[in-house]
Amino acid sequence: MDPRVRDHAETLVDWSARIEAGDDVVVHVDEGAHDLAVAVADALGERGANYHAVYSSPEMNRSYLRAYDGEFENDPKFELSLYEQADSVLSLRGTWNTSASADVPDSTQRAYSKARMDIREARMDTDWVSTVHPTRALAQQAGMSYEAYCDFVYDAILRDWEELAEEMARLKEILDDGSEVHIRKESDGTDLTMSIEGRTAVNSAASVAYDSHNLPSGEVFTAPTATEGEVTFDVPMTVRGTQLRDARLVFEGGEVVDWNAAQGEDALTAVIETDEGARRLGELGIGMNRGIDRITDQILFDEKMGGTVHLALGRAYDANLPEGESGNDSAVHVDLITDMRESGTKLVVDGEPIQRDGVFQWEDGFES
Amino acid sequence: MDPRVRDHAETLVDWSARIEAGDDVVVHVDEGAHDLAVAVADALGERGANYHAVYSSPEMNRSYLRAYDGEFENDPKFELSLYEQADSVLSLRGTWNTSASADVPDSTQRAYSKARMDIREARMDTDWVSTVHPTRALAQQAGMSYEAYCDFVYDAILRDWEELAEEMARLKEILDDGSEVHIRKESDGTDLTMSIEGRTAVNSAASVAYDSHNLPSGEVFTAPTATEGEVTFDVPMTVRGTQLRDARLVFEGGEVVDWNAAQGEDALTAVIETDEGARRLGELGIGMNRGIDRITDQILFDEKMGGTVHLALGRAYDANLPEGESGNDSAVHVDLITDMRESGTKLVVDGEPIQRDGVFQWEDGFES
Repeated sequence: MDPRVRDHAETLVDWSARIEAGDDVVVHVDEGAHDLAVAVADALGERGANYHAVYSSPEMNRSYLRAYDGEFENDPKFELSLYEQADSVLSLRGTWNTSASADVPDSTQRAYSKARMDIREARMDTDWVSTVHPTRALAQQAGMSYEAYCDFVYDAILRDWEELAEEMARLKEILDDGSEVHIRKESDGTDLTMSIEGRTAVNSAASVAYDSHNLPSGEVFTAPTATEGEVTFDVPMTVRGTQLRDARLVFEGGEVVDWNAAQGEDALTAVIETDEGARRLGELGIGMNRGIDRITDQILFDEKMGGTVHLALGRAYDANLPEGESGNDSAVHVDLITDMRESGTKLVVDGEPIQRDGVFQWEDGFES
Repeated sequence: MDPRVRDHAETLVDWSARIEAGDDVVVHVDEGAHDLAVAVADALGERGANYHAVYSSPEMNRSYLRAYDGEFENDPKFELSLYEQADSVLSLRGTWNTSASADVPDSTQRAYSKARMDIREARMDTDWVSTVHPTRALAQQAGMSYEAYCDFVYDAILRDWEELAEEMARLKEILDDGSEVHIRKESDGTDLTMSIEGRTAVNSAASVAYDSHNLPSGEVFTAPTATEGEVTFDVPMTVRGTQLRDARLVFEGGEVVDWNAAQGEDALTAVIETDEGARRLGELGIGMNRGIDRITDQILFDEKMGGTVHLALGRAYDANLPEGESGNDSAVHVDLITDMRESGTKLVVDGEPIQRDGVFQWEDGFES
């Protein structure tokens, strides 16, 4: 077994999920995640935790959903009680085919998800962590060879998380103290300001101890308001099955008032017209994971890439808001990414440049 | 997908487990049983059942057990409640390596099993069924090519179970009414009598409706007493990791008083000396599955083969005993098989030949 698989398992169990002796741990195993599952079982055994492995096969699920006719039962008790009593849920994603569910009708998928809301809530109430085991299907989706994709994934996952968490804490402090963010890119006319007054940034350090549930992670995010100006997202990505390129949004008084895209404009329009909240931003995220060195159209990696910034249309996260206050609400949360690693680009908080040409002020190469 | 996999899934769900709409079904999926799992999910969806898939990977289990140090927690609640609330548990066996757990110490395996007694009981209280999906590892264990092994497995599983159940009911009636069974093989000197007075035979028709929990099945079994005489088991099999050949047992007053074997005698001795009950028979089983045409050293198949008879040293099943009566008790239940399909062989109940040279009295070719 690739020694990096064992390192991955240790990082997941210790840094991310903080598993301790006696913990009741549910492990979700995708079809292609067997090797990681074996390494995780080893780590869980060493910690003295209890484990229950779920076979979370997209192909089984697809068969079941296509064959099912009628109403789904709400939150079957035998499954609900498993999650309600679990301390942690570790999801090891690693599909054999990223299109495995392509022929399940959307309406069926939605009805099934809706019927399992309490189960999902029970999972979210545990110390849950999602991670990815590299498969050939995921390599293919990223347009990479399997070997190169493995290197890519482990470079992103096997960080010095302690050190990165400290670096991110620095940015979190700046955002927590700050009132206004200004993003500027000379190349494409991006010139956007937003308020972050009274908001709390989240240091997403790939650990439940930081309220961060994905491995890899490596971003600091907050919930902006009162957005003004325009922005172009030059990182291509798939939105609702459609390739979106160079999406451009114009904001006035916090709302999108004009938009277009070089490709996939219809999908962009569909997102924006979902509901009221879909016209406003729910998130400003700043990627800080320098282990991610390329765009793979896998949001888990793309939005964490050091030197990128993402903005999400739609729902805001409660963690960014003052206690009891509710932020932007929407049925959607769609991340769009812009690459800051080019000349004439800056990220400014209250007049102070935090990042220039994709380099943070505390990094080598920052031009002040 | 091989259409026989779908037929297998339908047989399992409908004939064996009798799944109905709304049933809560736990599906155990071995590493190599993915295709069957997909077909089972399809059948469960069609019936309107709920399913929860468990990844029952021997390799994960091996890693966990080897890494664990200390006492295992008794029946972790999160798992126990899953099984306590399930209606059925379908186990789809299909390992990638029949020796996957070979380096787990016996003591660890025993301690783990012991710590999970309530979970096992909860599983046994459901309508549980175990079946086998053919893998290359199992084909190898059987000494067969993968293609030939698939044919072998599906010939055993895809029977007309309704018809076989009726045929087995005929034998059950004879055994229920009978007092004494006599087994005679001229070739090796087998000449054994036993009492079945007051015992009830089980028609093991691969369905929970018949209190039969394996697919394939196809045997009628009862619990004998007062065994006298000698018997040779000419079907080779692996007992406790040791190849056992031509085991010969001599009974007096219901107990083994002498024994030997052409190969593996030490393993046989260890079984017999386990405890008091290990010297007596717990089961007489008569194989009736004509789809099984060869010995593969896989007990699930071997003991069901039409034309064989097996006797088990050790524990008797409650189903064979009058209500409230306890039968032979022991920590072991070890099946030993003799092939009746040779000249000069007969199985007699109360003086009436039921089978001669491996052919039942109601089958073509029976010489009365």
